[in-house]
Amino acid sequence: MATKLPTREENFSERYNQLAEILAEHSAVRGCMVIKPYGYAIWERMQQVLDAMFKATGHSNAYFPLFIPKSFFSKEAKHVEWFATEAAVVTHYRLKRDEKTNEIVVDPEAKLEEELIVRPTSETIIRNTYRDWIKSYRDLPLLINQWANVVRREMRTRLFLRTAEFLWQEGHTAHASAEEANEEARRMHDVYNDFFINICAMAGVMGEKSESERFAGAEHTYTIEAMMQDGKALQSCTSHDLGQNFGKAFDVQFTNKNNELETAYATSRWCTTRTVWWVIMSHSDDKWLVLPPTIAPLHVVIVPFFKTEEELAVITEYIDEFVREMKTLKLFFTTETLWDRQVPLVVKIDTDETKSPGWKFNEYELQWVPVRLTIGKKEMEQWLVEISRRDTGEKQLIEKWSVVEQVQRTLYTIQKDLLIKNKQFHEDNTVFVETYDEFKKALDAGKFVMAHRDGTAETEAKIKAECQCVTRCIPFSSPEEKWVCVYSWKPSMKRVLFARAY
Amino acid sequence: MATKLPTREENFSERYNQLAEILAEHSAVRGCMVIKPYGYAIWERMQQVLDAMFKATGHSNAYFPLFIPKSFFSKEAKHVEWFATEAAVVTHYRLKRDEKTNEIVVDPEAKLEEELIVRPTSETIIRNTYRDWIKSYRDLPLLINQWANVVRREMRTRLFLRTAEFLWQEGHTAHASAEEANEEARRMHDVYNDFFINICAMAGVMGEKSESERFAGAEHTYTIEAMMQDGKALQSCTSHDLGQNFGKAFDVQFTNKNNELETAYATSRWCTTRTVWWVIMSHSDDKWLVLPPTIAPLHVVIVPFFKTEEELAVITEYIDEFVREMKTLKLFFTTETLWDRQVPLVVKIDTDETKSPGWKFNEYELQWVPVRLTIGKKEMEQWLVEISRRDTGEKQLIEKWSVVEQVQRTLYTIQKDLLIKNKQFHEDNTVFVETYDEFKKALDAGKFVMAHRDGTAETEAKIKAECQCVTRCIPFSSPEEKWVCVYSWKPSMKRVLFARAY
Repeated sequence: MATKLPTREENFSERYNQLAEILAEHSAVRGCMVIKPYGYAIWERMQQVLDAMFKATGHSNAYFPLFIPKSFFSKEAKHVEWFATEAAVVTHYRLKRDEKTNEIVVDPEAKLEEELIVRPTSETIIRNTYRDWIKSYRDLPLLINQWANVVRREMRTRLFLRTAEFLWQEGHTAHASAEEANEEARRMHDVYNDFFINICAMAGVMGEKSESERFAGAEHTYTIEAMMQDGKALQSCTSHDLGQNFGKAFDVQFTNKNNELETAYATSRWCTTRTVWWVIMSHSDDKWLVLPPTIAPLHVVIVPFFKTEEELAVITEYIDEFVREMKTLKLFFTTETLWDRQVPLVVKIDTDETKSPGWKFNEYELQWVPVRLTIGKKEMEQWLVEISRRDTGEKQLIEKWSVVEQVQRTLYTIQKDLLIKNKQFHEDNTVFVETYDEFKKALDAGKFVMAHRDGTAETEAKIKAECQCVTRCIPFSSPEEKWVCVYSWKPSMKRVLFARAY
Repeated sequence: MATKLPTREENFSERYNQLAEILAEHSAVRGCMVIKPYGYAIWERMQQVLDAMFKATGHSNAYFPLFIPKSFFSKEAKHVEWFATEAAVVTHYRLKRDEKTNEIVVDPEAKLEEELIVRPTSETIIRNTYRDWIKSYRDLPLLINQWANVVRREMRTRLFLRTAEFLWQEGHTAHASAEEANEEARRMHDVYNDFFINICAMAGVMGEKSESERFAGAEHTYTIEAMMQDGKALQSCTSHDLGQNFGKAFDVQFTNKNNELETAYATSRWCTTRTVWWVIMSHSDDKWLVLPPTIAPLHVVIVPFFKTEEELAVITEYIDEFVREMKTLKLFFTTETLWDRQVPLVVKIDTDETKSPGWKFNEYELQWVPVRLTIGKKEMEQWLVEISRRDTGEKQLIEKWSVVEQVQRTLYTIQKDLLIKNKQFHEDNTVFVETYDEFKKALDAGKFVMAHRDGTAETEAKIKAECQCVTRCIPFSSPEEKWVCVYSWKPSMKRVLFARAY
């Protein structure tokens, strides 16, 4: 990577486009990205944690087809309207060599009877399968998760943030009552929030989407709105109470306890590779990437200062004991869903003699390795090691015998400090406004704006047109208070969150 | 599942079709299967082990696009001929509502400029990406693995064995010399064999495919041929030395140590969800599924005998201590690639009062839970527990204090015994023949046949036409010996493996 990376002040957006290239790149296929090994390693860590969280709440994984028959798609009215314009459609099943031109062409005789849509989400195919799986209330609740790729055409692609193909998990549950389905949607929303805070070290606003911002076919959509460093909101994981909409569309019926036939209630939810992007957007400083230790692919890098092989051998012996010990260690962390989660401590010693220590320092700052240990002649003479924290840049000479303990302590401290910093940033950039003037000024200043609104679609549409922003959510934390809408001066009962968004 | 399951003798093929339904089912999309939670859990276990094995040999994971531009496909001549007839082709990117019929139709105006193929394998898109990643010999070797879904049209689908969409891992490496690429292909073939023996508890024939059976574009294809219980061969994981074929097709060039431009050398390899099927096919007995403990989703089930809640409470207290201890345990196993692999011991207590113990016994035999513990009044009076082994059906009363130790010992014993049994079966059903008559008889008797052949494509074709079988591989273990072809009586230097196959 070139050193022309702009600072956050200079060009926040361009800066992060360049940062993302360490993790992914645009592919030769329009709209699709290649996730590079370092970016994928972060996604793998997130997957491992989320998967364990889901299993702790009773979910099993399964796998459903990539393709969805066109007719399935049309069964839920709102659903098809939402996804029709971004569908990738398979129409043929064979190529052949053209006899005249000798080119490879699509064989016109191999046309599918019914076109297949590459899944943009799997509600339809999964509900169609559940119809056969659910016969009685004894089969409920059905709690299933899928890790998969999905495709939605994107005109303006951005790595991780907006790509035609992306990776995600999608949870699809079925329940015997409306209350139970709603509870499930809320419970999984809590799990996401737990992941958000305790794994990603991020604060966000938990709340419900307004009617116009809901997922197509949902009765309630729960979201966490994260604040990026430019003050824009990014909708992260969402959890949906689908009521009986998909159950009715796909005839998913069960015999309830009173021996009556009833339509099943449903929820769905997802978290995507976008998550990688918002964690970077939230934590990174002017020294490039910053990742919480819980999801960093590499925790500790050791850079020895040496000129000859003999010098390297001496250092290798000097560090041998604590390196061995570190490699057996686990990083523990606790969340509300998983009380005891362990990640093996990943340690690397960079003995490449073709690169200078300065080059290496730069490289590992870029990759955000949370802790760096440096050892040279000077340190060895005094039985010391230099430890450096990536997040603060702070360096310290510590006694050799204490290295293992200090490394662990530093990793936990970084994780904690990143969360505190992010919470503080969030608080500092959220404003409560009373007038439309204040509202507009706050938005232009890149703030999260808490404002009263009358709740009509009409007012929402007007604000959207005038300010290029929508209600991000109705925060759970927002108390009931009798007041008036900043726009219409009509009565309002709650403040909601407005912000410009990605 | 109904009890009409035929025995292995009665109808081997139908039996396994029915067995597979515990793990997967046909979906509404032609050729695509739904992998049910129990089947997916087995695949997850396999994934975890293989992934750790690959990482131990220096591989990183990454992710490449689902779609491949048609033009990429045509660049390697053999490759396109192989896959053209089974390609799923995306031609359009939008649906719309037809104004007259109000039906959802493919929007004819949204035609892609170049058609996209849903990946049947990723050699082409990955090599195209590597072109930019590889500039110098310092960038090599490049060792990357991908976990993904792939699609190849199948006319006659069978769950797990042959489906249009399936899940797999595909490894794609690049190297600076032909020797290094070949070594890598052989090394990963060894890793698969290690997985095969030590995780799947299976014996197989390791060897190289003959020219006519090689992967399209490969210079060497290494395979492991497994023997199913009906004597048919199943090709499992394969590893390919691609030489410079794809490097040339996609201009992947690097500056070598002599500062000359050279085309990179490549390998690829894969293991698919088919693996789930062949493990079942190999081990299962007339009591349905059999799985090695290393990949079983559930290791121990405890079935208490009780009539009232009070009785259950007493049993719960009785088993509490050893259950707690078991839940903290790991199952250790050693392979050549991973010297210390651990799997958490998964224990379930079935306290469902609506099902009888007999029903439960049947259910867990079907799911192949390796160890069952049974506890009732009679056992408790004598401080005993009944332990039952799924593979042999053997039951034993053991003292309560020894449960944890005995459970572990039983699991290790089962793993070992399954391998021994499979090896023995393999040996018993492999025959060495000298004449074409013997050859045909042995094939008809469902044997693996080791026979001399002259190595010409002509003889292979004739044997194939007359006997419906091909050379499965040239086994590494086959010694050089001057002899004559069973078919043509022309000179031959090695026996090769023939068998009918899935």
